Amino acid sequence: MDNRNQQVLLKRRPTGVPTTADFDIVDSPIPDPRDGEALVRGIYLSLDPYMRGRISGARSYAKPVDVGAVMEGRVVGQIARSRDLRFQEGDYVFGGYGWQLYSAVPADGLVKLDPAEAPMSTALGVLGMPGLTAYVGLNDIGRPQPGETVVVSAASGAVGAVAGQLAKRAGARVIGVAGGPEKCHYVEEEMRFDACIDHRSTNLGSALDAVCSNGVDVYWENVGGDVQQAVFPRLNDFGRIVMCGMVSEYNDLEPRPGPNLMSAVRKRLKIQGFIVSDQWQRLGEYRAMAAPLVRSGELKYREHIVDGLNRAPEAFIGLLGGRNFGKLLVRLGDDPTRSA
Amino acid sequence: MDNRNQQVLLKRRPTGVPTTADFDIVDSPIPDPRDGEALVRGIYLSLDPYMRGRISGARSYAKPVDVGAVMEGRVVGQIARSRDLRFQEGDYVFGGYGWQLYSAVPADGLVKLDPAEAPMSTALGVLGMPGLTAYVGLNDIGRPQPGETVVVSAASGAVGAVAGQLAKRAGARVIGVAGGPEKCHYVEEEMRFDACIDHRSTNLGSALDAVCSNGVDVYWENVGGDVQQAVFPRLNDFGRIVMCGMVSEYNDLEPRPGPNLMSAVRKRLKIQGFIVSDQWQRLGEYRAMAAPLVRSGELKYREHIVDGLNRAPEAFIGLLGGRNFGKLLVRLGDDPTRSA
Repeated sequence: MDNRNQQVLLKRRPTGVPTTADFDIVDSPIPDPRDGEALVRGIYLSLDPYMRGRISGARSYAKPVDVGAVMEGRVVGQIARSRDLRFQEGDYVFGGYGWQLYSAVPADGLVKLDPAEAPMSTALGVLGMPGLTAYVGLNDIGRPQPGETVVVSAASGAVGAVAGQLAKRAGARVIGVAGGPEKCHYVEEEMRFDACIDHRSTNLGSALDAVCSNGVDVYWENVGGDVQQAVFPRLNDFGRIVMCGMVSEYNDLEPRPGPNLMSAVRKRLKIQGFIVSDQWQRLGEYRAMAAPLVRSGELKYREHIVDGLNRAPEAFIGLLGGRNFGKLLVRLGDDPTRSA
Repeated sequence: MDNRNQQVLLKRRPTGVPTTADFDIVDSPIPDPRDGEALVRGIYLSLDPYMRGRISGARSYAKPVDVGAVMEGRVVGQIARSRDLRFQEGDYVFGGYGWQLYSAVPADGLVKLDPAEAPMSTALGVLGMPGLTAYVGLNDIGRPQPGETVVVSAASGAVGAVAGQLAKRAGARVIGVAGGPEKCHYVEEEMRFDACIDHRSTNLGSALDAVCSNGVDVYWENVGGDVQQAVFPRLNDFGRIVMCGMVSEYNDLEPRPGPNLMSAVRKRLKIQGFIVSDQWQRLGEYRAMAAPLVRSGELKYREHIVDGLNRAPEAFIGLLGGRNFGKLLVRLGDDPTRSA
């Protein structure tokens, strides 16, 4: 065990695009777990777009991170010390907390991971919150039918990749939207979407017209902005928009106007938002379905791993600008299951 | 039987606010019903906001009225001549067609009305398309729960009045929005909504805050514009918007921007549109529920009757500006069931 903990604190609330100066990296003592707690040595920290909302201070569905507090985040790691009978030193777990190397957390919130079931890091991605997000939004809102056309924005990202692959499995035609030729190539060739549009190089509207000649039945909204504007008028009657996030607008100082809603009447659209944390109880059901597909390689995933906690702020800022390629993780320390 | 038919034709597509010069009133021969048709002498013509869409020429869910053609509209009347065994001269029917005194229509599309069940005119309002609209939107989308707060725009109108009263019967607190003190008084005192806000005289936002201290769970959207802008930010988590229409914007030359949709994610909103004509098959179910309530006076309705087909254009233009008070009907000819 290292001698010291390291933490990333929120130094001040960012205005617009966050900078590394909005964060403080500090050394601190390794905490002592209390009765019923365990000390988790972090191995992977998940960085996700929702964190931008947590540091804005605006009213939202969850409490914001206080200025001066450790940045929020989900961690997989290994038990370093346990004061709960259910966990022993060396156990792999999901449920460490925050942008820090060590966290003392209530054992009630920890879930043991079996590295033989799937790589530990997947508990933060394809088999974790982002995967469950895709599953819930697709089953509860999108409900793609065989032959329908589904457009997924941020298609190579942690949520979009699963949403698109599950929509394919449901028999839909799936069109991705991603930034840059590398991501588009990956989405088409590895994840086998029917097509992927590069929003950086193309006129989105004409590109959509070219690959969605029958219009769009389901739009998975991860990004907002130009992509939303291009897809909205191309929705078919009875189209659904799965409102998952609008990452391209998270750094905006003022909200942009949205689409005029009269077409929701004319076309009988359903525009519905959801938050995966309302549906945590379905994680088991999701993992039971998805883990075998991950092991067989039928459900592909890609991770973008950044080494070292000190690079977390920069990586997070990049995530908001779409500079990651796959599920963004920070490696906090050795992963004995990978080096083995 | 008069010697001549009279018809209102669409003379040209209006730009912005329609004027009477956009319509032509012409005399024409009374048509001869063919085999399987009946000649209907119109008694009441229904004027409804959706007609603005039919004369705009824009792509919509239904075919537009051609320039030079008879204006579309639903009619109740009396059979003047029948060439179908199911109907006899003198029968009261729903299903005449268009802004005209007489129409020859397929008997298959006619429904006999029993004036003893409810006044004939209600087949165009509280027990017809507008009532069914309220029923479908409330049951399928709004689903108000006991204790929830429902805001209904155009609350004294044909659809809003039924939507609000049905929401009250479901146990919700119901707040109307209407234009002018007379309508608000009617909504509060006769229809027994919990409150009604006059959007013409008040700051809508503060008025809503005053009467919706727990926020808004369901918004019945009939009008768009300022009312939508005021209600949207006051929606609660898991709020629903029943997108029925946006009449205050129907004369716009360019669509106005709508609300930024990120709050649909944060608040898990559902914004859903519908068109009643998709659900005609539920009219019987609705009438079975609603007709007894109309007879007992538990479901109130108000009609705004304008006399004479030649006044239809002016009445329709007024409807788009909210100058009607209750379900707008044009009396085309004698109603023997009322004069009796």
